Amino acid sequence: MSDWATALFDPARVAIIGASATTGKVGEVFLQNLKRDFRGEIVAIHPSAKELLGVACFPSLADAPAPVDLAVIVTPPAALSGLVADCGAAGVPVAVVITGGFAETGPAGATLQASVVAAARDKGVRIVGPNCFGVVSTSCGLNASLAVGTPRRGGVALISQSGAYGMAAYARASEEATGFSRIVALGNKADVDESDILAFLGRDPQTRVVAMLLESIVDGRRLFETLAAVARIKPVVVLKTGRHAAAKRAAASHTAALATDAAIVDAALRQAGAHVVEDGLTLLDVAAALDCQPPLQGRRVAIVTNSGGTGVELTDLLEAGGLEVPELSGSLQARLRELLPAHGSPANPVDVTTDWPRFPTMYGGAVEALMTSGEVDAVVPVLLQRSAMIPEVGAAIVDAQTRARAAGSTTPLHVCWVAPRAAEDNRVRLLEAGVPCHPWPARAARVLSALHASPAAETPPTPEASPRPPLAPGWAPAEAVFSLLADAGFPVSAFNMATDAKDACAKARAIGFPVALKAERAGLLHKSDAGAVRLHLADAGAVETAFRDFVRTLGPGPALVQKQAAAGLELMLGGRRDPAFGPVVMVGLGGVWVEALKDVALRLAPIGAGEAAAMLDELKGRQLLAGYRGAPALDIRAFAQLLADVSAWFASAEWLAEMDVNPLIANSGSFTIVDARMLIGLPLVQP
Amino acid sequence: MSDWATALFDPARVAIIGASATTGKVGEVFLQNLKRDFRGEIVAIHPSAKELLGVACFPSLADAPAPVDLAVIVTPPAALSGLVADCGAAGVPVAVVITGGFAETGPAGATLQASVVAAARDKGVRIVGPNCFGVVSTSCGLNASLAVGTPRRGGVALISQSGAYGMAAYARASEEATGFSRIVALGNKADVDESDILAFLGRDPQTRVVAMLLESIVDGRRLFETLAAVARIKPVVVLKTGRHAAAKRAAASHTAALATDAAIVDAALRQAGAHVVEDGLTLLDVAAALDCQPPLQGRRVAIVTNSGGTGVELTDLLEAGGLEVPELSGSLQARLRELLPAHGSPANPVDVTTDWPRFPTMYGGAVEALMTSGEVDAVVPVLLQRSAMIPEVGAAIVDAQTRARAAGSTTPLHVCWVAPRAAEDNRVRLLEAGVPCHPWPARAARVLSALHASPAAETPPTPEASPRPPLAPGWAPAEAVFSLLADAGFPVSAFNMATDAKDACAKARAIGFPVALKAERAGLLHKSDAGAVRLHLADAGAVETAFRDFVRTLGPGPALVQKQAAAGLELMLGGRRDPAFGPVVMVGLGGVWVEALKDVALRLAPIGAGEAAAMLDELKGRQLLAGYRGAPALDIRAFAQLLADVSAWFASAEWLAEMDVNPLIANSGSFTIVDARMLIGLPLVQP
Repeated sequence: MSDWATALFDPARVAIIGASATTGKVGEVFLQNLKRDFRGEIVAIHPSAKELLGVACFPSLADAPAPVDLAVIVTPPAALSGLVADCGAAGVPVAVVITGGFAETGPAGATLQASVVAAARDKGVRIVGPNCFGVVSTSCGLNASLAVGTPRRGGVALISQSGAYGMAAYARASEEATGFSRIVALGNKADVDESDILAFLGRDPQTRVVAMLLESIVDGRRLFETLAAVARIKPVVVLKTGRHAAAKRAAASHTAALATDAAIVDAALRQAGAHVVEDGLTLLDVAAALDCQPPLQGRRVAIVTNSGGTGVELTDLLEAGGLEVPELSGSLQARLRELLPAHGSPANPVDVTTDWPRFPTMYGGAVEALMTSGEVDAVVPVLLQRSAMIPEVGAAIVDAQTRARAAGSTTPLHVCWVAPRAAEDNRVRLLEAGVPCHPWPARAARVLSALHASPAAETPPTPEASPRPPLAPGWAPAEAVFSLLADAGFPVSAFNMATDAKDACAKARAIGFPVALKAERAGLLHKSDAGAVRLHLADAGAVETAFRDFVRTLGPGPALVQKQAAAGLELMLGGRRDPAFGPVVMVGLGGVWVEALKDVALRLAPIGAGEAAAMLDELKGRQLLAGYRGAPALDIRAFAQLLADVSAWFASAEWLAEMDVNPLIANSGSFTIVDARMLIGLPLVQP
Repeated sequence: MSDWATALFDPARVAIIGASATTGKVGEVFLQNLKRDFRGEIVAIHPSAKELLGVACFPSLADAPAPVDLAVIVTPPAALSGLVADCGAAGVPVAVVITGGFAETGPAGATLQASVVAAARDKGVRIVGPNCFGVVSTSCGLNASLAVGTPRRGGVALISQSGAYGMAAYARASEEATGFSRIVALGNKADVDESDILAFLGRDPQTRVVAMLLESIVDGRRLFETLAAVARIKPVVVLKTGRHAAAKRAAASHTAALATDAAIVDAALRQAGAHVVEDGLTLLDVAAALDCQPPLQGRRVAIVTNSGGTGVELTDLLEAGGLEVPELSGSLQARLRELLPAHGSPANPVDVTTDWPRFPTMYGGAVEALMTSGEVDAVVPVLLQRSAMIPEVGAAIVDAQTRARAAGSTTPLHVCWVAPRAAEDNRVRLLEAGVPCHPWPARAARVLSALHASPAAETPPTPEASPRPPLAPGWAPAEAVFSLLADAGFPVSAFNMATDAKDACAKARAIGFPVALKAERAGLLHKSDAGAVRLHLADAGAVETAFRDFVRTLGPGPALVQKQAAAGLELMLGGRRDPAFGPVVMVGLGGVWVEALKDVALRLAPIGAGEAAAMLDELKGRQLLAGYRGAPALDIRAFAQLLADVSAWFASAEWLAEMDVNPLIANSGSFTIVDARMLIGLPLVQP
């Protein structure tokens, strides 16, 4: 499976189809770019030329020396199917198609693209693109892209959908000393997609960090699974753009309203252990940092600064990003105090004051002491103006890192840099020594905040699909919903269906008072709003009156008699089957607030109890779970297990499109499902 | 009052006290910096020298030619009181004290500082500092600071507390073409504070924008009032650092827990009409942008881009920052379509594709069309790689701006820039032409989001102080609280105090059933938690039982009988008297959620009804006010008027330290205060 990927990134012989010697033509740009640094052999395919710019030409792939590992195609779109067939015949495993004019242009282009993919599948050729920026691989000097040069070699692999960040990589390499292994832009992703490339990069020894910029996701579930596997081996940083474009669904359930496409993508990426970022510069910053420094194992950051004010600003920004700047221990402070002048501060931020002749000693000593202290998860020297201008300060920090690493420290080191451009050489020296050097506190804080990612939890196996119940697509009747939940072993409040007032009284007696009565009518979804729910009915008379009221106001029909639940903490659970990511589970605090405040946590289902507990910890209203203002505390362990069980059951119920359990009333470790609704999916889409 | 400020920023003659010719000494650095660009006269005060580095020296101020407008003092701290007295005797209106060793070093330094301030007040001399970076004023070439040069002249005034950003300004001017009018770092702010300087800058014709970086605030209420007055005349951009350090108060009221110092500062700055930012780079970016472009009058942004992917990323980031990227009208799209190639997009973002030979025409035409359309509140061309490298693209954008301005457009224009350093000259040309040019989408979005500030609302006059009621400091008894609210005309649920069970029944009958009963015991604050509240008592028997229960479980004591309120939307109002900012009013959705979710809005009190309505609009749960899921909509107008009235009453009740009204139950336009508590302040602190 990886043969084509090895051929793509480490080809020995590349054929360029559509090469040209005419300045400014795409075929010429690509030929020039290829020629500049590629350490393998290049052949050009051209109907008539014998050679172009010194590269030997052949009329077709069949005439070229074999084997060709990679074909780079820049010809007009119409000829593509034929060329792909030629690749197959010549045993070329993979082609990068730069040419546009396919699905991105409309239906005709989409048809053309489909025929190319069909030809490729038929002939066993993999296609990168079409309509893409190309591919760069520094291990062999391959630059089969629009970019003007091959970037410096290093451990960062970049998967981008558009070429914009592919173009930026070259400047990034020269200006920020970022080293790249592979760069690929996937364009229309007609065949090879982000998961294919990611799987290869996971086992690629040239690649230490993967950065992905995704505008769309081809197969969410596969990406999640690939990502979780790769993220256990090496860091993966992801930016998903198009968050604002998530369609605004007309939503009948809380789950559908809150488990939006963007929220599911974000939850899935984090669940898989990715470092999730919000913008492209941070994507590159974080990836570059992870190529030379370990991720943060915790949230504690130490700052060393020659500007008290900037230390305060950085602390604000780190804490806003979810990190902490804790006070250091007494013994560590005592050690630091020996380095500092009398009016310096050994707390955190460590303030070295403006005593600049001592900067190298103080910065070096403090950085080493902090990196080897075990008290913090990252050390951030602020180099501001004078401290940045003195080359010896940077050198002292690099030496301190060397000593700390020799002493076994794995604490990440990042510089926050505020200095005029005249000091840029000092910054580059830090970068070259593997010390990330982030200009300005806000950028430093953004990067550091993204460097702490929770490792992917083990995903429990998805249970076998449960048999589809005999229910029509659409919202299921209440009795069926409660029966399904009860049969699955979930704690549903005792219920029974009553056909008339007398029957309702009898069933209420059997269940025990007080009861709730809920009218059941076809198409009646928002029952409370419609006056179709009566609570706290204390005796048979009240039940009878309520039943007759329903008949009068809503017309004849049955009603569900249900044990009235005691008051307690209201929670909601939800499930949604996403077209891209499959089953998703959601939890939030129940009642009307859940949707108004959008305070929910999401995961791809199924999950284990540990991950379920992590979901509860994400809620902004989590204070309420801990027994807020006198209410009993929720038994988190028991509830997390229930949530995990619900997630497994929902994942197995492939016929279930959406589910709301709201509210579920909790009293410590006792749970009662009071209301629920289920949307049964079309058998066609859920076979 | 502004004489000293004019002398500070536009002195004709400056005396430097503590000048030196010894390289590296502070007195030499300042003398060199002053000499370089100052267009007035410099005199040096030195015990023995006749001249230093070509500057005439005098043994004392009394010997120097008069008048001296500004004294710059760099001598050791001990001599300062005497030197300030000399300034007074010589008629020097203001001294900048660079020297440290005062309050920042501890109690002894604080005492020394106090004596200096006393001397200054006595002699009528204003002091900037001590322990400060100095002052820069480009109108006269004054650089009485540690910075290595005088920055370019322009409209940005920078008030900083620490010197770090003062130092950064010089680099900023040369690298980003930002022009400054005045720069001042206030150090310990022993005398002159941020409000003093801000008031001067408000009427300073050299200053078009004020940027303030505050670590502490001397007098919050005065800053608020000064800011509101200045922000009506020119934009003020503010960064307040130290947000994380806000003390975590042990809070008995919701208001105290939620109206934290940081939240009050943020609310006050926004209420005054400031552009509030979160980091120092954005402070400089926003101020620089406002020196050449107007603020955003609304939230609609148009993007023109040669990279679809970057357009999508920028849209995400702008929308996350509270702005919108709306679809353009059909007629405007038709106009844009004429400029674009067939596969370009005239929606928004406007995508000019990769057709680079046409970039200048397309960018220029689109920018002009958008700036004159009236459909958007800002136009943002993305210049990415190729479009940034072509000088004609920038030139076309500048020309488009000229034409649009000539046609009366006031729409702001900002470039989002992603390009290698080789294209930096093109960027500088845009900056020089007054077009802000922000590197990378995230930075562009941060700046643009901060460019939309709500103008300060008119603050109603604070009512006359109300007489202090005869209540001891501490939490007031329930009866007093409800009486105070009722007397002030607020809609308190009918209540009466009962001394025994019989009395309670009689009073319940007079009020009308159902009632609530609340036990009143000294020191009992969290009544619900203690079982001291019984709701929905339907008859005298229930009242009697409840009263006897209280006596049994809580000991003997009275109880408040209160009309049971009907169900409705629960809201909370709060008031807090902040030591720095004075009376603050708060509103949120009531119940237990308010504090767990921290969803409240704050303003300095008093406010008008318009500002009160704006507070409601800030709530994350505002959906619930609009009649969410079948509940009746809140009468926003009526409730805003009530909130405004409460704010005025609270402002006038100077004896009231804190107040919670929670819940207030609303049914459309009918409001009932169900519970409230008040913390009576110490007469000493509230005279």
